[in-house]
Amino acid sequence: MMLLRNEIGQVLRSVRLSQRRTLREVSTAAKVSLGYLSEVERGQKEASSELLHSICEALDLPLWATLREVSDRMAQAEGAWIPDSPADLVEREFPLASVG
Amino acid sequence: MMLLRNEIGQVLRSVRLSQRRTLREVSTAAKVSLGYLSEVERGQKEASSELLHSICEALDLPLWATLREVSDRMAQAEGAWIPDSPADLVEREFPLASVG
Repeated sequence: MMLLRNEIGQVLRSVRLSQRRTLREVSTAAKVSLGYLSEVERGQKEASSELLHSICEALDLPLWATLREVSDRMAQAEGAWIPDSPADLVEREFPLASVG
Repeated sequence: MMLLRNEIGQVLRSVRLSQRRTLREVSTAAKVSLGYLSEVERGQKEASSELLHSICEALDLPLWATLREVSDRMAQAEGAWIPDSPADLVEREFPLASVG
């Protein structure tokens, strides 16, 4: 079973790392404790809606984009597939178009 | 501030109503209490990841689809826009194409 808190945690963590920021930096910016952010990232704690909002703000990441990424990951894991750009559509119709 | 629990609650409620099912029916199927489901639907309680999973299962609604809908609603409210089907793309390019 894919749990929402695990997937949210992974997305938040990967975004933070892609920004080369530390738990301390982001937790300070989000006004949450470092331990809380760490637990959320590891899927060990459910983030409240308010604190999830703060964390996303600290990452300069719209909450909707976080949820979209989580949704896409879950859909992929289930084998569902949702086109979300013309490029994706082309890729689906002609999966090998970009190869060779 | 759009809160995740409010948006999730609204989506779950609208799906349940579209299925013409009662709180009692869905809460029984999801093995959660009627009061809990009611509070989740009204955004008064954060659903745990496990119970959110159960509620979505009871509604025969993939969790990713719930999150996608929540994400789309939030993006729209913020004026962000994500195409997700060729029909949407046509609508965006020719917003009045379907009128008259």
